[in-house]
Amino acid sequence: MIKTLLVVLAVAFAQPQADLSGPWAFAVVDLGVTNTSRMVLTQSGETLSGRIGNQPVEGTFRGGAISIKSADRSATGTFAAGQLTGELSQGGRTLKWTATRIPPRPVQPRTHTFEPTTFELYFTSRVAPVLRIAAGDTVRTWSVDAGGVDAKGERRSGPGNPQTGPFFIEGAMPGDTLVVRLNRIRTNRNWARSGSEVMANALDPYHHANLKWTEPFNSRWTIDAAAGIVRLEQPPDNLKDFTVPLRPMLGCIGVAPGQQLAVRTTDSWRFGGNMDYNQLVEGTTVYLPVNHPGALLFVGDGHAAQGDGELTGDALETSMDIEFTVDVLEQPNYGQPRAENDDYLISIGVGGSLDQALQMATSGMMRWLERDYKLSATESAIVLGFAIKYDVVDLVGTQVSIAAKLPKTALSKLRKAS
Amino acid sequence: MIKTLLVVLAVAFAQPQADLSGPWAFAVVDLGVTNTSRMVLTQSGETLSGRIGNQPVEGTFRGGAISIKSADRSATGTFAAGQLTGELSQGGRTLKWTATRIPPRPVQPRTHTFEPTTFELYFTSRVAPVLRIAAGDTVRTWSVDAGGVDAKGERRSGPGNPQTGPFFIEGAMPGDTLVVRLNRIRTNRNWARSGSEVMANALDPYHHANLKWTEPFNSRWTIDAAAGIVRLEQPPDNLKDFTVPLRPMLGCIGVAPGQQLAVRTTDSWRFGGNMDYNQLVEGTTVYLPVNHPGALLFVGDGHAAQGDGELTGDALETSMDIEFTVDVLEQPNYGQPRAENDDYLISIGVGGSLDQALQMATSGMMRWLERDYKLSATESAIVLGFAIKYDVVDLVGTQVSIAAKLPKTALSKLRKAS
Amino acid sequence: MIKTLLVVLAVAFAQPQADLSGPWAFAVVDLGVTNTSRMVLTQSGETLSGRIGNQPVEGTFRGGAISIKSADRSATGTFAAGQLTGELSQGGRTLKWTATRIPPRPVQPRTHTFEPTTFELYFTSRVAPVLRIAAGDTVRTWSVDAGGVDAKGERRSGPGNPQTGPFFIEGAMPGDTLVVRLNRIRTNRNWARSGSEVMANALDPYHHANLKWTEPFNSRWTIDAAAGIVRLEQPPDNLKDFTVPLRPMLGCIGVAPGQQLAVRTTDSWRFGGNMDYNQLVEGTTVYLPVNHPGALLFVGDGHAAQGDGELTGDALETSMDIEFTVDVLEQPNYGQPRAENDDYLISIGVGGSLDQALQMATSGMMRWLERDYKLSATESAIVLGFAIKYDVVDLVGTQVSIAAKLPKTALSKLRKAS
Amino acid sequence: MIKTLLVVLAVAFAQPQADLSGPWAFAVVDLGVTNTSRMVLTQSGETLSGRIGNQPVEGTFRGGAISIKSADRSATGTFAAGQLTGELSQGGRTLKWTATRIPPRPVQPRTHTFEPTTFELYFTSRVAPVLRIAAGDTVRTWSVDAGGVDAKGERRSGPGNPQTGPFFIEGAMPGDTLVVRLNRIRTNRNWARSGSEVMANALDPYHHANLKWTEPFNSRWTIDAAAGIVRLEQPPDNLKDFTVPLRPMLGCIGVAPGQQLAVRTTDSWRFGGNMDYNQLVEGTTVYLPVNHPGALLFVGDGHAAQGDGELTGDALETSMDIEFTVDVLEQPNYGQPRAENDDYLISIGVGGSLDQALQMATSGMMRWLERDYKLSATESAIVLGFAIKYDVVDLVGTQVSIAAKLPKTALSKLRKAS
Repeated sequence: MIKTLLVVLAVAFAQPQADLSGPWAFAVVDLGVTNTSRMVLTQSGETLSGRIGNQPVEGTFRGGAISIKSADRSATGTFAAGQLTGELSQGGRTLKWTATRIPPRPVQPRTHTFEPTTFELYFTSRVAPVLRIAAGDTVRTWSVDAGGVDAKGERRSGPGNPQTGPFFIEGAMPGDTLVVRLNRIRTNRNWARSGSEVMANALDPYHHANLKWTEPFNSRWTIDAAAGIVRLEQPPDNLKDFTVPLRPMLGCIGVAPGQQLAVRTTDSWRFGGNMDYNQLVEGTTVYLPVNHPGALLFVGDGHAAQGDGELTGDALETSMDIEFTVDVLEQPNYGQPRAENDDYLISIGVGGSLDQALQMATSGMMRWLERDYKLSATESAIVLGFAIKYDVVDLVGTQVSIAAKLPKTALSKLRKAS
Repeated sequence: MIKTLLVVLAVAFAQPQADLSGPWAFAVVDLGVTNTSRMVLTQSGETLSGRIGNQPVEGTFRGGAISIKSADRSATGTFAAGQLTGELSQGGRTLKWTATRIPPRPVQPRTHTFEPTTFELYFTSRVAPVLRIAAGDTVRTWSVDAGGVDAKGERRSGPGNPQTGPFFIEGAMPGDTLVVRLNRIRTNRNWARSGSEVMANALDPYHHANLKWTEPFNSRWTIDAAAGIVRLEQPPDNLKDFTVPLRPMLGCIGVAPGQQLAVRTTDSWRFGGNMDYNQLVEGTTVYLPVNHPGALLFVGDGHAAQGDGELTGDALETSMDIEFTVDVLEQPNYGQPRAENDDYLISIGVGGSLDQALQMATSGMMRWLERDYKLSATESAIVLGFAIKYDVVDLVGTQVSIAAKLPKTALSKLRKAS
Repeated sequence: MIKTLLVVLAVAFAQPQADLSGPWAFAVVDLGVTNTSRMVLTQSGETLSGRIGNQPVEGTFRGGAISIKSADRSATGTFAAGQLTGELSQGGRTLKWTATRIPPRPVQPRTHTFEPTTFELYFTSRVAPVLRIAAGDTVRTWSVDAGGVDAKGERRSGPGNPQTGPFFIEGAMPGDTLVVRLNRIRTNRNWARSGSEVMANALDPYHHANLKWTEPFNSRWTIDAAAGIVRLEQPPDNLKDFTVPLRPMLGCIGVAPGQQLAVRTTDSWRFGGNMDYNQLVEGTTVYLPVNHPGALLFVGDGHAAQGDGELTGDALETSMDIEFTVDVLEQPNYGQPRAENDDYLISIGVGGSLDQALQMATSGMMRWLERDYKLSATESAIVLGFAIKYDVVDLVGTQVSIAAKLPKTALSKLRKAS
Repeated sequence: MIKTLLVVLAVAFAQPQADLSGPWAFAVVDLGVTNTSRMVLTQSGETLSGRIGNQPVEGTFRGGAISIKSADRSATGTFAAGQLTGELSQGGRTLKWTATRIPPRPVQPRTHTFEPTTFELYFTSRVAPVLRIAAGDTVRTWSVDAGGVDAKGERRSGPGNPQTGPFFIEGAMPGDTLVVRLNRIRTNRNWARSGSEVMANALDPYHHANLKWTEPFNSRWTIDAAAGIVRLEQPPDNLKDFTVPLRPMLGCIGVAPGQQLAVRTTDSWRFGGNMDYNQLVEGTTVYLPVNHPGALLFVGDGHAAQGDGELTGDALETSMDIEFTVDVLEQPNYGQPRAENDDYLISIGVGGSLDQALQMATSGMMRWLERDYKLSATESAIVLGFAIKYDVVDLVGTQVSIAAKLPKTALSKLRKAS
């Protein structure tokens, strides 16, 4: 007993009670599936209060032993080596849990110059991040074109929108919103390739069946960045004077989708991905729902320019210099991609048909107005009814998308709740 | 024989051989259904040549008797009282035909001021025209609001987009394109009414099921034409400062649909109709396919302003002063509504779903580029792929619509065939 | 005063107070639009009670003068020559009304043999009925084929599903359900014609664009009614032994759509019409929503047989002998076509896309279970979740349709409310 | 040199020239992506001929060195330890290749009894197979229910259709068709759970918004296998007598999707997966396109019974005893799931909307008739037009599905090409 006492005293003196206050990544493993939430604790003496996800918790921390409970779960554990581990009881079952501290947001954001060497063909959490960055940090990097060819014309990856990334953003937790400001999206070579047929799903099928496409057609384009235009290298006569204004955009921007999904980088869904949205240009801020710790951000598939919907399947595919700054918002997460530029709030709906995509886009915008601007359903109806603009975003892949846009001129006339 | 000779001489002297040269409305009645086409004849002596619709015809005109034939039809008849009548043989059957002269386009266009007294609730050829006008003419008139109420607040018709018209345009024949330039579209009273709920087909159904609409909601608006804004008469707090820029548009513009159809003026189809397109404003030119002799033009359903899709079912419904100028293009007719403004060529697709509407819109634009600009399919793909913009036009009715827009900046870079 | 008394006495003696009890067709004309409802009155002395549509009314009838009112309307009028006429006050406006007695259902139903001489190409109330029949009556008639050709091979109408009818059913009022039992649907000649290409909207567009159809193809078929089969007259080698079981059906059955609509008989909507449903065969009972007094029933477009969806645009088009018996149910009207056979309750959804059609079909069946079988939403979910069958009904026209079918074996296990 | 000669002689004598004849798994690694095809060689002396995939190849094999080429590729390599390795030149690039023998189909098929211990929540090739079996083999195994609970009521996996498998089928190569005959699909416990609300995408949104679901609702069912029925444990009054006929089916059957995709087992696509098709019962044969070497077959999500479309999201979810026999067909692979039972050929179309799913289903059936029955497009149109039946398969997930079914009675009347 003396021995025990001595140990206790030793602990008590050598290791004064730690302060568990602050945010933690709280992970529960259930039959092989890990679910991670943000736990935020406030410690006052030996008393703990706070929340796990949105659920309030309270408990105690005493002598290295933690005990917390929420309305339907209770957990015990120990604190060692900066980590909490223990057992959780929920619904009559006992599960393991761990918690690690979420590092504080750095006072001074950093700028990372990242040279990619691997390129990912799947939006997934099944690959290791290429770089860990913090909220507030800026990344300067580049992407290969949709076919995997870089600025020097070298093939670096198999085709199908190979991505740069994924980037792990410290502190981003499931349920959060990842903010990605596109600081600089610029073409970095003088050529692009495009498709030369309109996709069948954009055409009246009887019209489509009678079209005679020119084959072969040289769809290589010259990018004249100085003049700000793109032109076919070998145009047919009718298009001898045809040029496209250079307007570089990212065809792909997305985070790892839910759990262990691996989605081809030619497709999109609620996590973003291959949205092919011609408004995702330099100066735009993109909001993505975080599904995994660290968010795991992917970027790629640069287009020198693109009409609505990416009608030709391949736009002006080219390699790109990319600079973005990330941030993490704890709440709210609208479960779908959103964006914002000087002129618009933008809610992007992704669905199996345009009708379903438009429904998701409109509902996303209404939720945004409700949560951030405290509008009632009817107030939102009034605002959207007379101000909404829709863009047909993307017609490519198993999912199509439509964006609902609210002009900031309309927004400026709302009395936003404080 | 002497007698016959005398008769012939008498005819020859008394009635010098008429000249059938020029355009005719050629009508065939088949088991109760009348099909009318433009017949254009050139007479040289007793020899006739020309076409009926797109089919070449040739024949003779001698002593008041006409005989013409095309590849698969032959007709005989007589000319009397300025009209041709006779029998037609096609596919082994004998049918009656008549032809009346299509009046020449007046040298001097006129401006008609038309005071409506009746209002139509169906787009149809089953009603008598309210006014006959010529290609080149201008009409100054007005419309009641969607509920049937006029500028003075008087109820003039049952609700459901009562139309002003139909106007019969001399010389417009099935297969032609009716051109309607909207010279002036202005609100003419100081109030409007709107819907106050977003339609269910624009929302995620799970979101829609949980919405709480404010009922009753006073959705009467004040139109301040001088200031160019519209505001709720009794706004809720959040919308106290909310105003909508006044941008008057026509919710309905259409011609009589094919044959004897009668379509509610709350619906739309390939003849136009209740398209609720917020780009159909003053200064826009609308192109409509002619399905009936005289086209039968209807206008109405003025909106003081509207977001895309007419999300609230009713936009800012109000009465309107309308001035338009019509013209008739013999060819081509693209079988769907189109429009043009300073910035865009616009092809409007109408379909049972947004996916189908977009297909019709894109194909319509490709046909336009092919026929008027002589682009090949691949050239169109290139142009549209990097310049097309889509608008979600209308979500109301049994048909929805999407517009494909081609910027004139892109068009100006095409080498249009002469 | 004496004089007045004498008059009153004279009236009292000469015209004993009529009894207004019973059903009336109550018609209000509002700015040119007539709305007709069933008014049911019960007279007790000089006191009236009852309803107009679903609204309770009460009032008085005294000396030939009627006065009734409901929650939001009041009407006065006079009774003369078996008819009521007067003025109605609603919403501050004064409108004219009339009411005529709805004849009682005959004790003895009749069978009418009707030889059609005209054929209608529009579902509409704008044409005069060809025959007036009563609830309970049976009609024996026939239809031409989709191209207008009769049993003898004579062309009787222009093409596009010319209809036999419309039949006016006495007592059928807007809001009612028209019941049409198909007693006998039989081919009456030995040949049919069909399409020979699959419609583009039923095919993957890339597949469709590469198909090579055999042209010309002789798609004339021989109907061998004795053997119960149909075979191509000149089959290609692979189809030398191919026969189709004879299963005569009506491609079209419908009532006049709402108000003054005129819908082509190649199209369908909530009033039925060209549904092309291969389950509408002899022995089936069809339920249609009544939109106009008399319902105005149309039948036609017989098919000797048809796969789901009428994939080839034209099925085995032929003329048909038709016998049906009608009935009128006052309530409920589900706003869409329904049917019933020995095996199934059938709710037919019509919409702009298959997705929308399925939604209408399922909701229609749930409403049916709720109203006729008193099931709660969850009870319906349970029943439908494990018993529902869907048919793809029709892919032709501006609207497509899907049927939801509930097996009667499942129905027999419900405790239907009495 | 002598030494070299001796070595060569030694090789020549000690290792007589191997015979490379037969099938090989030919794998090329290109920038991290492995593409595997079946190579079939015939060796005659030192001369090789055959094909890689569908491309003819020829070459030589001499002294352990192989050299082969096709129209656009040439490869060299060496044979050692039963394996070929070398370099491949295509499009100016040099890639590594290897080939391993595809084992011959065993003379005697085996029956494997497999006790699962892990359960997969993704259809993917990213997991190791649980068992390797040969074409012709039979597997007896079982599955947990959609929530992860086994026959004994023990929770074995997280929820969301945990799968048994994947099974690696020797010799199955990308482009092949995997045949899975469902010999035995039987429930193995006496209870199930279901959903109790109709999914919103199956309902008219206005109807859906007004529904009042009973909450909580006990949706636990008793399976009475002896009586062949399923009944609610605690039914509401109206459903006291309601039973569902026991008809066990597999909600999920699928192979690993293309490349490295990982698709949730709640979703479906061209590889099959969670199709929730109530025709996939005991006695049915399922055909799946092979995307990976070994196919990687997953099975699970047993339903005791289900109406069309899995209207309640969860059907009668239960654990299941499963026995199936696999086979591999080298060609053709239709790129989508198909099935066959005593009555029908079945082509399953999966798409973002029902309209798209139906298009894929119909085109799949036409391709089947074209390739296996040598029908022309027009012949297929005739057969399908009058014999096709559609099933609404599944309304759950990001993709929905429709099946096109051709009755074998119609098939039996075709003169199938030999």
